[in-house]
Amino acid sequence: MKFTKMQGIGNDYVYVDCFKEQVKEPGKVSRFISDRHFGIGADGLILICPSGKADCRMEMYNADGSQGTMCGNGVRCVGKYAYDHGLVPADRRTMTVETLGGIKTLELEVKDGKAVSITVDMGEGTLTSDLPEDIQVDGKDYRFVGIDVGNPHAVYYMDGIDRLDLEKTGPAFEYHERFAPDRVNTEFIEVVDRKHLNMRVWERGSGETWACGTGATASVLASILMGYVDDEAEVSLRGGKLMIRLDRATGRLFMTGPAVEVFNGSIDIPQEIYYD
Amino acid sequence: MKFTKMQGIGNDYVYVDCFKEQVKEPGKVSRFISDRHFGIGADGLILICPSGKADCRMEMYNADGSQGTMCGNGVRCVGKYAYDHGLVPADRRTMTVETLGGIKTLELEVKDGKAVSITVDMGEGTLTSDLPEDIQVDGKDYRFVGIDVGNPHAVYYMDGIDRLDLEKTGPAFEYHERFAPDRVNTEFIEVVDRKHLNMRVWERGSGETWACGTGATASVLASILMGYVDDEAEVSLRGGKLMIRLDRATGRLFMTGPAVEVFNGSIDIPQEIYYD
Repeated sequence: MKFTKMQGIGNDYVYVDCFKEQVKEPGKVSRFISDRHFGIGADGLILICPSGKADCRMEMYNADGSQGTMCGNGVRCVGKYAYDHGLVPADRRTMTVETLGGIKTLELEVKDGKAVSITVDMGEGTLTSDLPEDIQVDGKDYRFVGIDVGNPHAVYYMDGIDRLDLEKTGPAFEYHERFAPDRVNTEFIEVVDRKHLNMRVWERGSGETWACGTGATASVLASILMGYVDDEAEVSLRGGKLMIRLDRATGRLFMTGPAVEVFNGSIDIPQEIYYD
Repeated sequence: MKFTKMQGIGNDYVYVDCFKEQVKEPGKVSRFISDRHFGIGADGLILICPSGKADCRMEMYNADGSQGTMCGNGVRCVGKYAYDHGLVPADRRTMTVETLGGIKTLELEVKDGKAVSITVDMGEGTLTSDLPEDIQVDGKDYRFVGIDVGNPHAVYYMDGIDRLDLEKTGPAFEYHERFAPDRVNTEFIEVVDRKHLNMRVWERGSGETWACGTGATASVLASILMGYVDDEAEVSLRGGKLMIRLDRATGRLFMTGPAVEVFNGSIDIPQEIYYD
């Protein structure tokens, strides 16, 4: 199986071009190849497939083999792959990707014939809490804003996010009864100024990650609603930076960030993995 | 740069065939490629180079860019690569590898034209403590055996090693004043029977790892000296199994284990890494 390893601010997947390759039992393949010592090492597997409704279709599998819906960092890499490898014509600067979360529209910034930065229309966000709402977590008082951008987020404001011991405290936020039974993705935000946020994220089911595109999007919308930032703000995550913009006319949120092709490879999938 | 990703019981390196490739500033390259989100992802970089004294030379770099001396799991993979890729003739079943820890002799087990299991002559081990020695760590009483097999080890005997919270307690063993200033690699051993040990390892400078060939070797020698196991014993580590044998006639220790080629790849090293 030929593959390309790509990352968007550290959120890394193995991408397979299913215009050329066939992948049987992709959930099992994802579990094997995602292992960082015995496999290729990735957050999961993304198949880039032909689509009847868009320029291509993104079929996403998590490291545990379950199917994923959408991933902002992943769809940017799909856009870069499709452009750089000629799945869309060289003069195109917009393209569409079919996902389980709907058809996503991308804008491509091209340099020397390669897509270097991609903007994703993340759709609209919905407020799901008071603005703000007070909450006690582990006996301490916090203030958060609830936002849904296709998946649920709780955005907490505080100072000193670098000092948070998330391995210890993260689960208390994720499993808080306020968000039962679905749990919630939790963002910890420091407002730097009207155009900059610092963020750490505790993802539902994954723990702390270096990057979460929907989390950054939810955090900027929450911060706009709170009056903390302007309609366009940069979010510094542990893995890099994303720019998030609210278009007031349509209510839609746009995320801009990098997509990087790290290496190309070829792997023989061991037959054992199909019999687990 | 073309490379091959290989692993021996989960101890994984990026291998570059320097009979064909040149790698400039390998320490910097190792730091970049070892990163598991932004690079290839590995425990480090191993260059397989021509040698004037052996069939080939293993030049090893850790994930932090420092140069390594020797690695039992790494040298097995060098042996497999050299055999499978024709750096030694197909009828050979022994070969030599030059390392910073001396010239190592390997025995190859070949199946369908590929090396599947490799035995490494690990040399002799030296007792560096009383047999056993009592010690207090973090206010608790323990019993250990000190063994040097080119690097220093302290082998502790206890039950319930699966329940150890090594992230918390490991550093107290590593930095104990008994082993100052060089610190020590610490093995936690459950004796299953006269032919089997279970082991977890806390490596000096790396923390808990899935596999440590010198640690397994030291643990079997310690267990032989304590009268717990016979001259040949299997060690179950988190990443897999190694067989260790003491040859009484020569006092030499032999380690046998698997070596696996996971995938082949090609990467463009970003120029920025040379200017860090």
